[in-house]
Amino acid sequence: MAVATQSLEELCINSIRFLAVDAVEKAKSGHPGLPMGAAPMAFVLWDRFMRFNPKNPKWFNRDRFVLSAGHGCMLQYALLYLTGYDSVTIEDIKQFRQWGSKTPGHPENFETEGVEVTTGPLGQGVANGVGLAMAEAHLAAKFNRPDITIVDHYTYVILGDGCNMEGVAAEACSLAGHLGLGKLIALYDDNHISIDGSTDIAFTENVSGRFESYGWHVLHVENGNADLDAISKAIESAKSVTDKPTMIKVTTTIGYGAPNKQNTAGIHGAALGADEVAATRSNLGWEYEPFHLPQDAVNHMRKAVERGAVLETEWDKLFADYSKQYPQEAAEFKRYVSGKLPDGWEKVLTSYTAEDKGLATRKYSEACLNKLAPILPELIGGSADLTHSNLTEIKGFGNFQKGQYQNRNVHFGVREHGMGAICNGMALHGSGLIPYGATFLIFTDYMRAAIRLSALSQTGTIWVMTHDSIGQGEDGPTHQPIETLASLRAIPNLTVIRPADGTECSGAYKVAINRSKQNSPTLLALSRQALPNLTPTSIEGVTKGAYTVVDCQGVPELIFIGTGSELNLCVAAAEKLLGEGKKVRVVSMPSWELFEEQDGAYKEFILPKVVTKRLSVEAGASFGWHKYVGTEGDTVSIDQFGASAPGVFCMEKFGFSIDNILAKAKALLD
Amino acid sequence: MAVATQSLEELCINSIRFLAVDAVEKAKSGHPGLPMGAAPMAFVLWDRFMRFNPKNPKWFNRDRFVLSAGHGCMLQYALLYLTGYDSVTIEDIKQFRQWGSKTPGHPENFETEGVEVTTGPLGQGVANGVGLAMAEAHLAAKFNRPDITIVDHYTYVILGDGCNMEGVAAEACSLAGHLGLGKLIALYDDNHISIDGSTDIAFTENVSGRFESYGWHVLHVENGNADLDAISKAIESAKSVTDKPTMIKVTTTIGYGAPNKQNTAGIHGAALGADEVAATRSNLGWEYEPFHLPQDAVNHMRKAVERGAVLETEWDKLFADYSKQYPQEAAEFKRYVSGKLPDGWEKVLTSYTAEDKGLATRKYSEACLNKLAPILPELIGGSADLTHSNLTEIKGFGNFQKGQYQNRNVHFGVREHGMGAICNGMALHGSGLIPYGATFLIFTDYMRAAIRLSALSQTGTIWVMTHDSIGQGEDGPTHQPIETLASLRAIPNLTVIRPADGTECSGAYKVAINRSKQNSPTLLALSRQALPNLTPTSIEGVTKGAYTVVDCQGVPELIFIGTGSELNLCVAAAEKLLGEGKKVRVVSMPSWELFEEQDGAYKEFILPKVVTKRLSVEAGASFGWHKYVGTEGDTVSIDQFGASAPGVFCMEKFGFSIDNILAKAKALLD
Repeated sequence: MAVATQSLEELCINSIRFLAVDAVEKAKSGHPGLPMGAAPMAFVLWDRFMRFNPKNPKWFNRDRFVLSAGHGCMLQYALLYLTGYDSVTIEDIKQFRQWGSKTPGHPENFETEGVEVTTGPLGQGVANGVGLAMAEAHLAAKFNRPDITIVDHYTYVILGDGCNMEGVAAEACSLAGHLGLGKLIALYDDNHISIDGSTDIAFTENVSGRFESYGWHVLHVENGNADLDAISKAIESAKSVTDKPTMIKVTTTIGYGAPNKQNTAGIHGAALGADEVAATRSNLGWEYEPFHLPQDAVNHMRKAVERGAVLETEWDKLFADYSKQYPQEAAEFKRYVSGKLPDGWEKVLTSYTAEDKGLATRKYSEACLNKLAPILPELIGGSADLTHSNLTEIKGFGNFQKGQYQNRNVHFGVREHGMGAICNGMALHGSGLIPYGATFLIFTDYMRAAIRLSALSQTGTIWVMTHDSIGQGEDGPTHQPIETLASLRAIPNLTVIRPADGTECSGAYKVAINRSKQNSPTLLALSRQALPNLTPTSIEGVTKGAYTVVDCQGVPELIFIGTGSELNLCVAAAEKLLGEGKKVRVVSMPSWELFEEQDGAYKEFILPKVVTKRLSVEAGASFGWHKYVGTEGDTVSIDQFGASAPGVFCMEKFGFSIDNILAKAKALLD
Repeated sequence: MAVATQSLEELCINSIRFLAVDAVEKAKSGHPGLPMGAAPMAFVLWDRFMRFNPKNPKWFNRDRFVLSAGHGCMLQYALLYLTGYDSVTIEDIKQFRQWGSKTPGHPENFETEGVEVTTGPLGQGVANGVGLAMAEAHLAAKFNRPDITIVDHYTYVILGDGCNMEGVAAEACSLAGHLGLGKLIALYDDNHISIDGSTDIAFTENVSGRFESYGWHVLHVENGNADLDAISKAIESAKSVTDKPTMIKVTTTIGYGAPNKQNTAGIHGAALGADEVAATRSNLGWEYEPFHLPQDAVNHMRKAVERGAVLETEWDKLFADYSKQYPQEAAEFKRYVSGKLPDGWEKVLTSYTAEDKGLATRKYSEACLNKLAPILPELIGGSADLTHSNLTEIKGFGNFQKGQYQNRNVHFGVREHGMGAICNGMALHGSGLIPYGATFLIFTDYMRAAIRLSALSQTGTIWVMTHDSIGQGEDGPTHQPIETLASLRAIPNLTVIRPADGTECSGAYKVAINRSKQNSPTLLALSRQALPNLTPTSIEGVTKGAYTVVDCQGVPELIFIGTGSELNLCVAAAEKLLGEGKKVRVVSMPSWELFEEQDGAYKEFILPKVVTKRLSVEAGASFGWHKYVGTEGDTVSIDQFGASAPGVFCMEKFGFSIDNILAKAKALLD
């Protein structure tokens, strides 16, 4: 079919297809198959439905779009380019997958304006979408008034077979159905092909039936390659159902238009090659050189700029009215979106002294959350079915449930991974929400991909992890973290804090909230068991990552470095040694990452190079500690799996006792 | 209802209930709710259906039982005790959750004979069950003959709401439906309660509909508290459907019998307390002291011993016949079960020299797998939809599919976590299978809980992980491991090996296969990109974890420590320095864990204490390397997220170049 006979819409769709084909061909790397097959649904969605402003990608009330099948990112870059975003030019598309480009191999929100969330690890995007829709529902319930609706957008997701095989997507979609998120609309690119070949070899379930079982509204577009009106009608139908999320199965042909490679795994993740590119051009009647497009198509899609300006202007007017009628709410809304914290918020975070009865740090965490919740209404979150173990309920703020979206306690169910991706989605809604997600520290293993993405994609999520060591006790080795702290500290851009008592827990929350506003996630490791309050601990100290809590005159012979539940053991051991005339120091080190941010002088002040006798004490693996204890130092640590027994037994048996610490210290001193 | 009026079956069921109640009460810790509610289904299953031999828990043809809801372990301990296993005595039950007991807080296969797999982290057990059923199907297809069936058992799973919320269970169950595993029967304890309260707050999906969508046969027992015949009929019906797995939803009351606490979250995970224990005794007419049981009930359940002896004797006879008719197959079967490897198997693993064109280590891995597959028929596995990227296909051995269970290439779909748990289940079938599972190294994050359990529960699984660094290239930071190696090395009992070339890859497989037979998992980190073969590398060297590949005369001034794709850079840098008259050594360190197993003399021989100028070179985080480079050393490493660009650019830009290595080395030497 020659260009002359193609409708304007066909020209637009083929423009998307060939931008993908040519960019992948030039890069000799990438995934042309999905963009070629999903171009029609994406075109219909972006051209006929999506409300956004290309010239202000962060316009608050925009519809959110998530390409959960992130490998198909050329689809998204083509849409951003065609609809007039400044973030993606034709030159950027020519630089697809090259060093420093705005068009990396998977969509990255921190690289490319207009990309809402970072996708590629499959299943994450649709789960982020659930979080985006929850954020919208929450803010709508909180801020909208019967006469003025200022929060009112859809979250659209395109996902593929890969996403639908992933457990994280299953978890989040089950919860989305439970919550009845009517403004979440997922288009499932049902192309029957994954990397290994036909989905017949591994994925023959009835996906639609599954989503219906989740409580979703499910539709099917049989000819997603050409039937644009059917796609439109399905999206309209989806919008008309307001009490359920909708999954539209859109049956397509992967690599549509490539005569020899379409509908094969060969087109999923590799360039077509010159011959097939030529054959595709011929087959689709495409007369344009690579990266050249019919001006009519570009002009048509660029109308999004004008539409977007109108949409934003209308909304601005609406918001001006809202500001007049509801000045207090409008001010609060503006504060949310600005990402500013209310003045003096941190004053509720209190210090404790040794006179205060010691509690588990999870209890202090509960206190912090409950003190912060009234003054930080943007704090929203919950636990993966361990609310009363993690102690994360913010009392008086109700359960976030269908029709009760103004509430702030989210029950995620036993869905750690889904929780993680949902929290990231809420954070990346860009509306100032501070999401938190909680489970046992060991179960970070279930949600690690989401935690990593919180760090990579710069979300301000707070991970509240309790039962942080063998001190957990009777549940035994399946539930006792050993290597877990090390494995989390190793993640770039994630701040891990393990507070030792009530004061340090306050410090940890001070850091976590502040970093949330800097789009940086924090993970708190909290004890199950009660710990004494130590008078010398301080909020300020926590913010520096490590600081001295017990010291001697002059240069110490030995430095204890303790964290969390073991700090008090270090203090006791040090006091014994000080009493014996030894010169020792105790450094509390709740956060390696915060300590690394300090300048060299501070680091030297706390851990002088000259003091080579150093003993770390932490109920976790020694892995990584050699950086701080050095070649001459030692660790009190546990490098094997734990055991089922009361926590005090576990601690004692595995060497977390004052006696053993003293013995190790004396061995170093001798 | 007084004891006198209770049927024998009721006495048995109440015996299970009160063992759980009293053990949890004594321990003041544990989960009585599930055992009390699930006792009827468990009794029916173990008394009327399960084929096992308590006096030989490892009898090959036993039905496998998995308590996926592992927190309810007192159910399993009660069954083991009552049916006459020697592993759990009444004294052991009194020691529930205590140090050194056989009755830890969650079922651990390595602690308690009769426990098949380690459960507790929710969802893992049912996914292990899929692996057990796949192992059975495979061995049945391979060894059974039309006239003699020697492999013929069911896999039964009890799972709860928690398991059914977990993505790992969803992934594995979708695959089980696809594979039509007719001998997998899951009983879903539908008690409507999870830790946070009623499942109404987070889990309202139609579970039965979901399993039907997966292709399962689904049944419902409405009164699981009392209708034993309905449970029986359901299990019979499940067995009659041979081409689909069956999910029996058994509606029960959590904590059945506790008048004030049943059907509440309060009984899920806490002791009942003396008052409620008394009230429960009264309510269920239970006149026995704690840990005392009606002898009739014990006698009845102990008939399992006699039944088991008969079953095993019958099977032995069958196997004797089989041995006569099929001596070769019988010998092979015996070798499988004995866990012995065929003599000389490792001879196929070849060495390479610098003359051999260098390939990616994933390519050498493919060669190893394909050389091993014909001589190790117990090798079975595959990839999570990255077969032709991971290069894990064993050619000529067909795809493991419904009705084609004799084949050995498993297509797991994009289900990393499910794959992990399934591989663990296949390993713990105890039949000598060596399962392997593959994906990109970064996606170990998706399956970390299963990898940890492979190490904890002593499975011989082999994890084949490719695209092991930023050298991965264009896919960008979502796909590029940074902290991943560190996070895996930190796991106790897991051996991580990162080979540098073809020879080291052979060494890695030698270790992995041997360790598999020692029930120890190995994870291979393999390059996407081609690497030169280095003449001094050796298989023997790999087995020691670290060894010298380039050396100088006398004591070196500096030691390079390289792994994987960076070893050749170290060699090139060292040769330059040696040419300049510097005294340097290059140590190849493919495995930290194997090196740590060596004696002190060997370690000192390779990394002499006196040489403090050490430079590690690895395209991953520095995290953990200070143990080897010490206070005076340095690392060439990457402690930030990667970038989307061709792999060679990424390597160069992030400092993995001979020039940068030389510069860092010279800085140390100066």
